[in-house]
Formats: sequence, structure tokens, C-alpha cells
Amino acid sequence: MTSKGLAIIAGVGPGTGASIARRFAKLYSVVLLSRSPSNFEPLVQEINSSGGKAIGISTDVSDANSVKSAFDEIEKQFPDSPLAASIFNAAGGFVRKPFLELTDEEYSTGLDSQAKAGFYFAQRSLPLLLKARESSPHPPTLIFTGATASIKGSAQFAAFASGKFALRALAQSLAREFGPQGIHVSHAIIDGIIDIPRTKQWVLPHEDAKLSPDSIADSYWYLHTQPRTTFAFELDLRPYIEKW
Amino acid sequence: MTSKGLAIIAGVGPGTGASIARRFAKLYSVVLLSRSPSNFEPLVQEINSSGGKAIGISTDVSDANSVKSAFDEIEKQFPDSPLAASIFNAAGGFVRKPFLELTDEEYSTGLDSQAKAGFYFAQRSLPLLLKARESSPHPPTLIFTGATASIKGSAQFAAFASGKFALRALAQSLAREFGPQGIHVSHAIIDGIIDIPRTKQWVLPHEDAKLSPDSIADSYWYLHTQPRTTFAFELDLRPYIEKW
Amino acid sequence: MTSKGLAIIAGVGPGTGASIARRFAKLYSVVLLSRSPSNFEPLVQEINSSGGKAIGISTDVSDANSVKSAFDEIEKQFPDSPLAASIFNAAGGFVRKPFLELTDEEYSTGLDSQAKAGFYFAQRSLPLLLKARESSPHPPTLIFTGATASIKGSAQFAAFASGKFALRALAQSLAREFGPQGIHVSHAIIDGIIDIPRTKQWVLPHEDAKLSPDSIADSYWYLHTQPRTTFAFELDLRPYIEKW
Amino acid sequence: MTSKGLAIIAGVGPGTGASIARRFAKLYSVVLLSRSPSNFEPLVQEINSSGGKAIGISTDVSDANSVKSAFDEIEKQFPDSPLAASIFNAAGGFVRKPFLELTDEEYSTGLDSQAKAGFYFAQRSLPLLLKARESSPHPPTLIFTGATASIKGSAQFAAFASGKFALRALAQSLAREFGPQGIHVSHAIIDGIIDIPRTKQWVLPHEDAKLSPDSIADSYWYLHTQPRTTFAFELDLRPYIEKW
Repeated sequence: MTSKGLAIIAGVGPGTGASIARRFAKLYSVVLLSRSPSNFEPLVQEINSSGGKAIGISTDVSDANSVKSAFDEIEKQFPDSPLAASIFNAAGGFVRKPFLELTDEEYSTGLDSQAKAGFYFAQRSLPLLLKARESSPHPPTLIFTGATASIKGSAQFAAFASGKFALRALAQSLAREFGPQGIHVSHAIIDGIIDIPRTKQWVLPHEDAKLSPDSIADSYWYLHTQPRTTFAFELDLRPYIEKW
Repeated sequence: MTSKGLAIIAGVGPGTGASIARRFAKLYSVVLLSRSPSNFEPLVQEINSSGGKAIGISTDVSDANSVKSAFDEIEKQFPDSPLAASIFNAAGGFVRKPFLELTDEEYSTGLDSQAKAGFYFAQRSLPLLLKARESSPHPPTLIFTGATASIKGSAQFAAFASGKFALRALAQSLAREFGPQGIHVSHAIIDGIIDIPRTKQWVLPHEDAKLSPDSIADSYWYLHTQPRTTFAFELDLRPYIEKW
Repeated sequence: MTSKGLAIIAGVGPGTGASIARRFAKLYSVVLLSRSPSNFEPLVQEINSSGGKAIGISTDVSDANSVKSAFDEIEKQFPDSPLAASIFNAAGGFVRKPFLELTDEEYSTGLDSQAKAGFYFAQRSLPLLLKARESSPHPPTLIFTGATASIKGSAQFAAFASGKFALRALAQSLAREFGPQGIHVSHAIIDGIIDIPRTKQWVLPHEDAKLSPDSIADSYWYLHTQPRTTFAFELDLRPYIEKW
Repeated sequence: MTSKGLAIIAGVGPGTGASIARRFAKLYSVVLLSRSPSNFEPLVQEINSSGGKAIGISTDVSDANSVKSAFDEIEKQFPDSPLAASIFNAAGGFVRKPFLELTDEEYSTGLDSQAKAGFYFAQRSLPLLLKARESSPHPPTLIFTGATASIKGSAQFAAFASGKFALRALAQSLAREFGPQGIHVSHAIIDGIIDIPRTKQWVLPHEDAKLSPDSIADSYWYLHTQPRTTFAFELDLRPYIEKW
């Protein structure tokens, strides 16, 4: 494969992030950001050994300096690759407990791991995406991963919902500011349990009641390939059997 | 091409409906419903002469009997084809005028051409879609075309918005009832001017400021191909330059 | 009491409509519209015998001619009373059943008893409300009663949700068109079971788990008294214990 | 006046907060929180000299320790007063500028001054509100002030919208957790320019095109007086002339 550009994926573990990385690696060099190298190392190896190009950078996306270092490294390693897609899929901040038991730190983490991390990531991605408008094979794309909690604040979900609502506000604001500049900003609401190693043992009443991470990745890829005449901002993905 | 099943498209003129028909005709036999044969005849010919299979049936989708006749005819002509996709793209009912100048008939037409037509179409489509679950190459799919007015009631848009809000209610209700039965029900919000013959002379400040009907069709096709673990219910499509 | 104007309430039975009538009768003459005189007669008597002024007019609000006759009668009986408030609280159209068992008539009734009735009622009310701007003690007000189904299309609720979504579209459209002309248009989402004679025997896990019709009426009165600098368009009312 | 309990208002300047304080001071002792004593001193004097009871506490609501100190002080000064209402009306965090020019600090401030401040305030208020359920004249109430940016992320509003979306998530989550426990949690969307000293010189095309802070306060009071059978969660307030 000759790489047609670059895709950065923030939040890569053995689940959705890995599927997204594999999907975008079919056309692009991919950069995987995760706090722990153990999260991206097997995947980097897998992609590189199957004809793709991947690197991983240990990054704490909720830390401004860490994000800065990661992007400095990316620009050094890929000085000539247009940034075709930047995907914010960071987990973190999830906590479910009675409101009066939440610590200040848990609430802060809920906000920072989504909203602040999304902010740092977007601020470093957008200049590169803008620069890539002529050379990217598809309109440069910035996608944020949302959840049910992005549009509904449920009991015991104050911290997580605050972070996810804020991330959606960020995505909307960027779509309205950078859409007219030719950048495709999208927000995907993942509404259900994703079928990943961590949820394997969760037995549901129906056998295929979990979201497929590969299909989520296909949706992100589909969003990326839309022409600028026909951008989708938001789509909600859920298993057929999900109550909503 | 060997047809893998059937797709029915209600509302076919020289715009989005035609693009949808062409897209779905790559895999399926297509049935085109429109009041006037002049709306579907050139397209039927085009598809049949390029290796696809298409028929047109003159239908007033806001008339229960007309929809009944159309589906009776479809079942007669395609007794063995599984209904893979049924797409409600009917126009009609659009009127923009001061509320106190709206006639009873204009308001009724706004409702009937969307909500009642959508109801008749869905009631005849769903039994066929349910029957096709084993044989359709992708989960049987029912898609409704919405508009900005599906989620915002603007001044002077009472009639059109009432019809489009009602159609969205129908789509949501069906997604929640038939999703768990394996049918993919979706609603697409088309937010902007579509680039069709009728709008060709509308000059906008940016040259590519209109939605591409082929790209809308690609989105519908993408929705159709999603596996049931990962159904999207709603997506909003607009030109990059659109204010929203 | 000297009546300061007129209030018309469409949809008056022994529940919310009666509470609204009693509340508005403290300042205004009230006109009660209901299909069956037995719905308004006791209330008319009650209000008149306690110092207020009320009349009832047998009206089918989903029938254009019936609404026309009612308003002709109102204008004849109250030629000099400014219309201070017009409240659309009509029931009807509720049906809950599997979609494929819905008859055409049930779906039509769902739409017509809300959307078309709301349209007829608004079209006859608005000219009178506009005329009352100088003389009404509070900004002339048009309120629509919504439900959970106004914003959520649930399984088996296609007919009712279609009517309620459409009614909300109508309300939004009117608020945006007539707000700037000084008319206060509002939409109240009633989310829960109302404590009325018909629901008395429904035993819920908590004793005060039903909405108080008098409190709903207080909310409508509150909306009516807002100055035009500070209009509320929408509010959602539910029992403290309600899941949402 | 004999105080029937306590109301705490966070965010008191010469605008909405002052109107809320005056309104709630008719029945309750009021505690005014603001960073600068100059914001509350004249109001404290005004209320105390007109027969009410008010104190001010210099507080930075986005600082956990400052909020802690303020509530410790409140509990010391009013050991026996039930907390009837707690109102989060803190300003701060507003910034409008191109996204790429936002500093990390501006974005953090947008989040912290709304979401984190709202969190600290709610965590200290709720135990007192729960304790007041038997003795408060109306259901203990927690109200959050929102804005247009609570439901729409506009271009150049990423920081402010993130904070306001997150605050709404918090409010929803609390309404769903504490509503069933008898606490009335509400969120008011203030959509327009408020008529306060700072905006006096902003000339709009219509003379009464700004929201009245006293009317906003009336709405908050109205919310507070609703019985628990009939709680409103959200209402949107705007001038009649406002585009939305």
C-alpha cells in the first residue's frame, strides 16, 4: 500500500479504536494514541506486518502537554503526509454512582477526559486538517465518539454525562465553524454495549445484541468518504434489539 | 446482474429518488412509484437498458387505495423476490405562506402527503420486509426522507413541518417496534437545497453549496448495508457551507 | 367578577380542561368546547353559579365546519370581549396497538384529532388574539397541550405520536410567526398520568404519582401572565416519581 | 417577615441574580454568593433594610474549597433554617472567539465556571435540600440557569457551549436521581439578551426586546412553588421578538 495520508486515532485499546485503526490503515498511515503502550503495540505490529503503516505514541489526551508532544512527534515523523482524518475515541471518565458519593476528582475526570481531551486533540488536529484540504483523498475529517450519555443525563451518570454533553457541544461548535472551511466534523452516538474483549462475558438475552466495533469503524469510514456537498454531522448507532 | 431482491422507492422524479433508484438497482430489481408516469418512465428505460431491472407504477401514495393497488401489482410481478429495501421519498405538501392564509386543504395536504402516505407505505412494506429477513442480502430496510422541517417548525412552515414532524414520529415508532424484529428503520434529515434540475438555476454564493442526490443515495445504501448489530436510526445531511 | 376578557378552552371533560376553565374563569369569561354537552354542562353551571361566566358550545374540533360555527357563535355572544387566551387541550386519537393492526381510520384519527383540530382552532383563534393585543390584561396567549408522545415515538404509538409531533410542529411554527407580533404561543409536554376520574382506580406504587390537573392549570395560567419580554415556549411537567 | 427558610443564590450581580434574590427574599432568608463583595453588598443592605434578611459570602464557586467554606458558614449562621431553594446562576466562562485562538485556560474556565462550579454547588446543596423536605413550605428546589448555548454549539462558542451543555447534563442527571426523592431540580434556558445595567446601552430594533430579570425571577419562583405531583424540569425563556 502507498499511504495516501495520515489518520490519527486517540483512544486505542482492543475495541472500537482498534477496528477504526485497521479500517483507516487500508488507505492511510495511522497514528495510535493511548496512555499505555500495551494498548497499541500489538496493533501497530499487526498493521505493519500486514502491509500497512502504523506507529503508536504513548499519550495522555487529557493532558495538554502530552497531546502537544504527541503532535510534535507526528509532525516530525510525517512531515509530508496530509492529515486526512483525526478521530477522538478516548475512553475514560466513566463512573456510575450516587451523586453524593462522587468525589471532586471523579467529576473532574469525567469532564477532563472527554471535554478537555477533545479540546486539546481538536486544537492540534485542525491546523493539520486545514492544511490537508487540497491533498487529502477525502475531505479532512474530525470525528468524535459519543454515547447515550451525550444526549441524556441519567441518574448516577452526572460525571460521565457532563463530559459527553460537553464533547458534543465541542463537536457541534466545530462543525459550524470548520464545516464552511471544508472540514468534515462529525459526532457518533454509540448507544449500547460494544462487543469487545471486556464485555465478552456479559451475557445478553439475544446473542447479537452488542454493537460490532468493525461496523462502527465502517460507519466512521463512511462518514470520512462523504463529499463536502453532503456531510453528515451526527448519527446514532445501536443494536437492533436495544431499547431507546 | 442477477437481482438479489427488490427495492421499492416511493417518490421518484428527476432528483433524489432517481439517484436512489440507480443506486439500489445495482443489486436489486427496483419498483418506482410516482403519480405521473413521466416521472419514472425515462428512469425505468435507463435502468433496464443498462442491465438492471425496473418497473414503474403510477401511484398516489397519499391515497390508501392507490398504494394498495401498487403493492398488489408488486406482489403479482415479483412473487418470489424478497423486499430488501423500501424507501419513502415522496415530495408533496410543501407550502410556505403566512399561517392565516393557509387553506384547510393546504394544511391537510401537508399532513396527508407525508404522514398518511408514509403510513400507507409502511403498512404495506413491513409485512414484505418481515418475510424477507432470511433471504435479503442485508437486513430489510425502511428509510424515510426527512427535512430541516422534521425537527424545526419555522414561521410560515406550519403545514410542511406538521407533515414532516409526523413522519419522523412514524419512523421512530417503527424503528422501536420493528428494529427488535430485525428490520432496519431509518430517518434521514436532508438539510439544504438538493442539486436537482428544478434548483439548477438557483445561484448560491458558493458553487458546491447544494446536496448531491447521488451522495444522498450513497448514504441510503450505506444505511441499508449496516448489520443489525449496528443500526443507525437517524443522520442529518447538509452541504458543508450550510448554516444550521 | 367583572370579566376582563375571554378564554376559550377546546377539550373540556372532567380532567385538565375543567381545571383550566376554573382557573381562567377567575378573570375571564370562559367558552368551553367539547363534542358532548355532558362534558361541559356541569362545569358551565358550576362556574356561573360561583360568580363566573361560562358557556359551552358543542363542537367537534377535528371538523372545520364545526369549529367555524363555534367561533361564529363566540363572536356573536362576546362581540366586545378581547380574546385573552385560547387553549387547545383536545383529547382524542389515542390508540396503542401493534402497527400492523392499526386501521387507516385509526391513524387518520390520530392525526386529525390533534394536528388538523389544532390547525382549525389556531386559525380561528389567532385573528381574535391579534385584535386583543391592546385590551387583554396579559399578552394574548395560545397554548397547546402535548404529551410524552410529542417528543418520542414509541413502539405501538405511531398514530398518537404522529398527531402529537405534528401538533408540536404547529405550535413551534406559530410561536415563531406570531411571537414577534406579540402573541404568546406555548406548548406544554404533559409527561405522566393525570389524576382525573378516569384514572382514579389506577393504583401506582406511590400515592401522589399522578399529575394534578389543577397544577397543570396553574402552569397554563403562569404562562399566560408572562410579559412579552419573557415568554416561555415549552415546559415539561411530570410527577416527581416519573421515569423519563 | 418571618423567614420560612433559606434560599441560596450563586451568582449575584446587578442582573438576574439580584432579581432572584429579591423575589425569594419575600419568603426566605437569602444567602448571596459572589466572588466580589461589591456584587452583593448593596443588595444585602437593600433587602435587610426593607424587612428581609440577607447575607453575602464572598465565594469563588469554581473553587471546591471556597464553596465548602461558604456552605460551612451558611450552616453555622442558619443552623435551623430549612434550605428551600438553591439557585445556580453563576456567570463566567463566556468567551467568543475563533476556536484556534482559544487558550487552554479559556476553555478550562468555560467548563469549570459552569460544570465544576455547578457540581460543587449541587453537592453541598443537596444534603441540605433533602433535610428540608418536611419543613420547606414548597418542595426543596435546585435550579440551574442555562442559555442558548445549553442546547446549541455555535461557531466560536466551543468553550461556553461545552460548559453550558455539561451543566444541563448535570441538571438532568440530578432531576432523574433526586426528583423521586422529592427534590425539584430544574433547568431554565435563557435565550436572549437580559435587560441589565451592562446591556443598557445595547440598542435593539425593538424597545422591549430584552428579557426582564424580574420576570426570569418570577419564573424561578413559579418553578419553586410547583407541587411534587407536577414538576417542570425545563423551560425556555425569550423575548417575543427573538429569532430562534
